[in-house]
Amino acid sequence: MKTFACMAAAATLLAFVAPASAQFAKPEDAVKYRQSALSVMGTHFGRLGAMANGKVPFDAKVAAENAELVAVMAKLPWAGFGPGTDKDPRSKAMSEVWTEQAKFKGASDKLIAESTKLAAASKTGNLDALKTSFAATAETCKACHDAFRNK
Amino acid sequence: MKTFACMAAAATLLAFVAPASAQFAKPEDAVKYRQSALSVMGTHFGRLGAMANGKVPFDAKVAAENAELVAVMAKLPWAGFGPGTDKDPRSKAMSEVWTEQAKFKGASDKLIAESTKLAAASKTGNLDALKTSFAATAETCKACHDAFRNK
Repeated sequence: MKTFACMAAAATLLAFVAPASAQFAKPEDAVKYRQSALSVMGTHFGRLGAMANGKVPFDAKVAAENAELVAVMAKLPWAGFGPGTDKDPRSKAMSEVWTEQAKFKGASDKLIAESTKLAAASKTGNLDALKTSFAATAETCKACHDAFRNK
Repeated sequence: MKTFACMAAAATLLAFVAPASAQFAKPEDAVKYRQSALSVMGTHFGRLGAMANGKVPFDAKVAAENAELVAVMAKLPWAGFGPGTDKDPRSKAMSEVWTEQAKFKGASDKLIAESTKLAAASKTGNLDALKTSFAATAETCKACHDAFRNK
């Protein structure tokens, strides 16, 4: 059982990290990619937040566009956290990203799931639905930043 | 007629630049956004190029995913070239981006159009269609870089 669990963990780990090493020529390319994807996502998420928090008027079409982009971008950064990408001085990623990979993958999967719901909620044109789903998605951002990102 | 042309140009200019100033709190946010979006786009475009040029085996599903991302990302950077975003030392953008805005918009519109075709071509699962459309899209990258980006 212990062997099986260990193999399963190794398989999960491999599935998670294999694309990164295959997809980026250099570790710094992976770091730049993940930071860029997170930055673009953050910009569009921020625009939703401005509407959810009443700082700008709610515009259903703009909200739907931004939420769709957040959902697309949410899937991208994780491939950039592969082996050898943990030593970049420009990165705020904690070592726990690599030492607790299953937990990190769980955190990124939560963002993907919540941002997908957020995109669906935004398409309803209902501000309350947007607010609820925005808050749930923001919670996944915060949880992951608290556990895996240096200040 | 001259007045009309001038007004039309002003309207075009306004439609082009208005979102930028409205969407970014600081010019450096806009610069970071446009660079991030272009970087993510470049990563996925590069993966298509590797297949189009035979450096990695053609995988229709992977090609379609990457082309779709290129088409999505291709629409984003331009809002980050608004007023006041022309002086950032980290930017390679030439002053022509702001002094020849109609030409710059034409160049970005060409990329959007070609990358949309590229996404459609990639969905056919036909490598030759991908190669043709990749080359046409790459040409729009090069033309815009030659005219608007410092080395």
